[in-house]
Amino acid sequence: MNYAIVFYMLGFICNVEALLMLLPLTVGIFYHEPVVETFVIPIVLLLAVGTVLTRKRPQKQRFYAREGFFIVSLCWIVLSAFGALPLLMSGQCPSFIDCFFETVSGFTTTGASILPNVEIFNKSVLFWRSFTHWIGGMGVLVFVLTVLPLAGQSSIHLMRAESPGPIVGKLLPKLRSTAMLLYGIYMGLTALLVLLLCFGGMSLYDSFIFAFGTAGTGGFANYAASVGHFNSPYITWVITVFMALFGINFNVYYLLLFGKAAQAFKSEEVRWYLGIIVAATALVTFNIRHLYDSLGLALRHAAFQVSAIITTTGFSTADFVQWPTFSRSILLLLMTIGACAGSTGGGIKTSRVVIGVKAAGQSLRRLLHPRTATCVRLEGNRVEEETISTVGSYLTLYLMIVIVSVLVVSLEGYDFETTFTAVLTCFNNVGPGMSLVGPTQNFSFFSGLSKLVLSLDMLLGRLEIFPMLVLLSPSIWKKSR
Amino acid sequence: MNYAIVFYMLGFICNVEALLMLLPLTVGIFYHEPVVETFVIPIVLLLAVGTVLTRKRPQKQRFYAREGFFIVSLCWIVLSAFGALPLLMSGQCPSFIDCFFETVSGFTTTGASILPNVEIFNKSVLFWRSFTHWIGGMGVLVFVLTVLPLAGQSSIHLMRAESPGPIVGKLLPKLRSTAMLLYGIYMGLTALLVLLLCFGGMSLYDSFIFAFGTAGTGGFANYAASVGHFNSPYITWVITVFMALFGINFNVYYLLLFGKAAQAFKSEEVRWYLGIIVAATALVTFNIRHLYDSLGLALRHAAFQVSAIITTTGFSTADFVQWPTFSRSILLLLMTIGACAGSTGGGIKTSRVVIGVKAAGQSLRRLLHPRTATCVRLEGNRVEEETISTVGSYLTLYLMIVIVSVLVVSLEGYDFETTFTAVLTCFNNVGPGMSLVGPTQNFSFFSGLSKLVLSLDMLLGRLEIFPMLVLLSPSIWKKSR
Repeated sequence: MNYAIVFYMLGFICNVEALLMLLPLTVGIFYHEPVVETFVIPIVLLLAVGTVLTRKRPQKQRFYAREGFFIVSLCWIVLSAFGALPLLMSGQCPSFIDCFFETVSGFTTTGASILPNVEIFNKSVLFWRSFTHWIGGMGVLVFVLTVLPLAGQSSIHLMRAESPGPIVGKLLPKLRSTAMLLYGIYMGLTALLVLLLCFGGMSLYDSFIFAFGTAGTGGFANYAASVGHFNSPYITWVITVFMALFGINFNVYYLLLFGKAAQAFKSEEVRWYLGIIVAATALVTFNIRHLYDSLGLALRHAAFQVSAIITTTGFSTADFVQWPTFSRSILLLLMTIGACAGSTGGGIKTSRVVIGVKAAGQSLRRLLHPRTATCVRLEGNRVEEETISTVGSYLTLYLMIVIVSVLVVSLEGYDFETTFTAVLTCFNNVGPGMSLVGPTQNFSFFSGLSKLVLSLDMLLGRLEIFPMLVLLSPSIWKKSR
Repeated sequence: MNYAIVFYMLGFICNVEALLMLLPLTVGIFYHEPVVETFVIPIVLLLAVGTVLTRKRPQKQRFYAREGFFIVSLCWIVLSAFGALPLLMSGQCPSFIDCFFETVSGFTTTGASILPNVEIFNKSVLFWRSFTHWIGGMGVLVFVLTVLPLAGQSSIHLMRAESPGPIVGKLLPKLRSTAMLLYGIYMGLTALLVLLLCFGGMSLYDSFIFAFGTAGTGGFANYAASVGHFNSPYITWVITVFMALFGINFNVYYLLLFGKAAQAFKSEEVRWYLGIIVAATALVTFNIRHLYDSLGLALRHAAFQVSAIITTTGFSTADFVQWPTFSRSILLLLMTIGACAGSTGGGIKTSRVVIGVKAAGQSLRRLLHPRTATCVRLEGNRVEEETISTVGSYLTLYLMIVIVSVLVVSLEGYDFETTFTAVLTCFNNVGPGMSLVGPTQNFSFFSGLSKLVLSLDMLLGRLEIFPMLVLLSPSIWKKSR
């Protein structure tokens, strides 16, 4: 294990976080809010730690998959611990574990909140809280790769460990250009959304808050009623469409940008993803039609909630806890499937689900026709046996983590639906669950232990299990040779 | 597809079922109950169909895996349809779909019931209902293999399709001897249990009812309070131990019988299985200790319920719907894990769970050390890559079936816990679920559609998915070449 590079990267990340905090600091100054304790002290702390750790550039810059996993999971924990300081120092949320939960929920783009009354908070603090969604959405290490020139091929391990999906590759020959391109598309789409929201009558501040939440597929809002606060069909539909757009594999935008539209529209994963959205919207609309005055209104609420849940954003315009069991079951299913690989969304990812389903079909064919050679294809390419078995293991680990988390949280004795959906919504980085953790509720009533478990679930979900588990592997803690 | 052999086997099964019905017929005569309509007419019908179909012994007796799957799944459906007749003809349960559900629940050793007041039924009908558990436990085609000498190696496909577990082999060189040996052990253990129950003060009739339910890991009782009716520590402990015994891989008994005790005790699956039972009992006892007068009583209820649920028997001595969420979550987990492969129990099976967990660990190691050769071992042997990927596919299909079933049943609008656990308990062949389908409740309130879906789930669970899915494969319906 190359510890020198681990500590160096950790320090670099602290400096980057200090830099990113300048934005909410500016917002605070603009709104004449107290910023010295809330932002200046955390920034100074971060810079101090960062400067010490990056003092010496490591000589051996080469590293491997396990260092990549290690750096990524450690960075995300440190990032969240420091990121919790503005909330804590603001004095409006006195418990560190609550602030940590909230910040992990921010960076992991979950959007589950422990704040009972969000509207009383300082604008700068809420800005930082939503900004963490935006940072966490595309990934902070991917961002670092755009500015830090690392030697050789090693940095692909960082990107692999942080980016969602079963297969992570480079779009451009140079990894740095790939990272810059991804952030370019991400910024462009976010800016477009801010403009469209302002155009719909939202204040610039609110537009940024909701654009951050949408782009990162996070879900933090500065109003208790979330997007429902605006009660505007225009804003609802714009956010519905943009949530769905941010759940699409960013490779598709790259192809569109470079004039390969035909290839972009052929993406099998995106077709499945859009197909599921359309089918789910139709089913939910039909199921809830009697709850609303018109079919149009039912459609709008159904489409918004489906888009918010499958992309794991978690905004809401309706209290779906009141919906029939069928619609609630559909939403729980969408939570689990999640968005496309290579998007900012969470969940198992559409491509993993598609690979899993195809592999199951292949097993069935193999049982029936033992002597016929078969293979699983995705996007026209043969999926390696190793990828398939890794997807299988991913699903197994996914289930194991859900089970262990449910058991620990169930010690609190809340009803089964609350316990189960709290774990599911945190692990899939969605935000709201059902019953006591529905979209109009919050997570403040859980004990410290449950909040810690749910925070861990959010990190496990965002980093797709393996990097976090590596932290627990004894071999990783052995001395470097 | 060799249809001649399919129809021949189907006819043979009808004759066997007619033969088996002679036992409840005798019980009916003994208790002076009306038996002509209840048993004689069904027997005549079965013999008529059986005679027509077995008129001509097929010349080509050779067949393959897909015929095996096809025969097994078709036989189980036909068996259940005819098996429902005694209940229907008794006039005490007027709806055919209800009788079908009840009989599928019997043969698949589920034990979920739609009878609101079981104690008013004729003794002979209840005897048949419990006897179906015993028949379904070890498998009716395995029984057929003991009496029907089929040419060549083909019959192994029948045994593979019907017997639970990821790897099915022969204990003895001849399949027929293997089948006879398995039934020998099964009968011996059942007889021992009947004796022990009689010794504890149960009537001979009741002893048979509870021995059938225990041996087949079914769970039908002739009292509303199930085993709780007797309120006897002796009976509770005897059944607790025997449920656990019938959940053990029968290979272990074979090894014990033939003096290979050392090898038997080394079985990795059995160690995991017993370890899970002990751990779960300890956790539940601790969690429910304040609900009962003494720790001993809490332990007895915990051990009984844990054993009843992990073996998927489904007897009960306590209404665990009233237990805390933590204990309920543990029971739901045990339901899903299920008993050992090669036992009469249902669920995913301990060995599949162990293989899945080990494969996940292997994936993790492979990510960390890409150049190290690794393999998964069970019982000291290397598990083939193909077995691992089939286990992965099994889990994927398992999840898909749970999801689709929950969606269909959720259309009825019962609470989420009822819907989810009704599907889980039927699919895993357990019996009772939580909330509205708890151990003191029954399934009669569901609609015909839900009952059909749940019946299908029971069959899918008992036959371990693949054989039933083969029925849906287009290639199976193509003409034989």
